[in-house]
Amino acid sequence: MTSITIIGAGNIGGAVARLALKAGAAVQVLTRDAAKAAAVDPAVTAGTIGDAVTGDVVVLALPYPAVSEVLAQYPDGLAGRVVVDVTNPLDFATFDSLVVPAGSSAAAEIAAALPQARVLKAFNTNFAATLATGTVGTTPTTVLISGDDADAKAALAGVVEGGGLRAVDAGSLKRAHELEALGFLQLTLAAGEKTSWTTGFALER
Amino acid sequence: MTSITIIGAGNIGGAVARLALKAGAAVQVLTRDAAKAAAVDPAVTAGTIGDAVTGDVVVLALPYPAVSEVLAQYPDGLAGRVVVDVTNPLDFATFDSLVVPAGSSAAAEIAAALPQARVLKAFNTNFAATLATGTVGTTPTTVLISGDDADAKAALAGVVEGGGLRAVDAGSLKRAHELEALGFLQLTLAAGEKTSWTTGFALER
Repeated sequence: MTSITIIGAGNIGGAVARLALKAGAAVQVLTRDAAKAAAVDPAVTAGTIGDAVTGDVVVLALPYPAVSEVLAQYPDGLAGRVVVDVTNPLDFATFDSLVVPAGSSAAAEIAAALPQARVLKAFNTNFAATLATGTVGTTPTTVLISGDDADAKAALAGVVEGGGLRAVDAGSLKRAHELEALGFLQLTLAAGEKTSWTTGFALER
Repeated sequence: MTSITIIGAGNIGGAVARLALKAGAAVQVLTRDAAKAAAVDPAVTAGTIGDAVTGDVVVLALPYPAVSEVLAQYPDGLAGRVVVDVTNPLDFATFDSLVVPAGSSAAAEIAAALPQARVLKAFNTNFAATLATGTVGTTPTTVLISGDDADAKAALAGVVEGGGLRAVDAGSLKRAHELEALGFLQLTLAAGEKTSWTTGFALER
C-alpha cells in the first residue's frame, strides 16, 4: 500500500490524511507545529516541516504562497516522489484573478521547481467536506487528477478509491490550468452563495 | 417578455430556442438554410443569417470559428442588443488547448468586436440535453451567466428561469475565461467517457 506524507494540516490536509488512512495507507503529517499534525488523527505519524518525508506520495496541502518556502526546506526537490499540488492560487486581495501567469498553473510552476519529482494536480476542485462525506449534494465525490505520469496518477487514484471516492484522470498536467480555473470559479460561487462550502460542482456519470 | 434571436440551429441553438419558447419569449431563429431554422419548432420565426434581427437578446449559437463571418453580416455590430456567446473555442485539431489568447476568452474577443452590444457568456457549460431535460444527473440544470451588465444578465436569467432552469450570475465577463475552461474540461471528460454527453458537471446548492 502507498505511503503518503501530507504537508499541512488545514481543512484539505486533514481531509486527505483521513481519506488516506481509510484507504489503509501509512500516513505522515508534517506542519509547523507537530501538535497540530497529531491532532488530525491518532493514527498519523506527526512531525514538523523539514523532517524527512516518508511517503512515496507527498501532498502539498498548503496555501500557494507558502509552497516555495516549504519546498526550500527540501533541497533534494522531493526527487523520486509523487508530489500532489492541491492549491487554488487566487489573488485574495481582489478575488478576481490568479497569481500564476496567464495560461499556466500553480502545478506547472511547482513542476518546474521540482524537476525530479512527478507532479500531479488534485483535490483543488473538492471542498474538504466533500472528501469526508463522500458526496457532493446527492452525487458521489469525484477527485479530478491531472499529471504527465500515468503510474503517479494511478498511485494517487488508488488512495482516493481506497478511501471510497471516485478518482478521474483529467488528463495531462496541462489540464491543471482548467482544474485551477474550475477551483477558482467554484470558490467565487461559494463566496457569492450560489453554491455552498460543503458542495460545489459534482461530476455526474 | 423578452424577444430573442438565435443565430444557429445546432444542438445548443435548438435547445436554447425551445427553452425560450417555454419561457414565453418571441423567438426568431436564423441559419444559413431557413428550412433548418423552421425545423427547430413550428413556433419560431425562421429566417436566414443576414436577415434583420428582431430579438433584444441575440444568441450566437455558432462554432467559434464561424462567429466573425456571421458578425460581418451585421455591420451595426448588433448595437444595443444583449449578445450571448455560447462557444467553447477549442483547438479541435489537438483537443488540448483553446484558440483564444491565454488568459482571455472567446467572449472577450466578441465583446471587443461589438463595442455597442452588451456581451454575455452563457450556456457553454451546458450540454444541450441538460437544457431540454432540466437535469444534470439528478440535479436541476444550472445555466452559468457572466457579463459586465447587470440588466443584460437579468434579461437572460429571466428567459432561463422562465424556461424552468436555474440561472446563476457567475460574475463579470472576465469570468468567461473560467467558464470556457470549465466547458473545455467538460468536453475532454466526455470525450474520455469520464462523464456523459447528456450530463457533465452539476452545480449543487
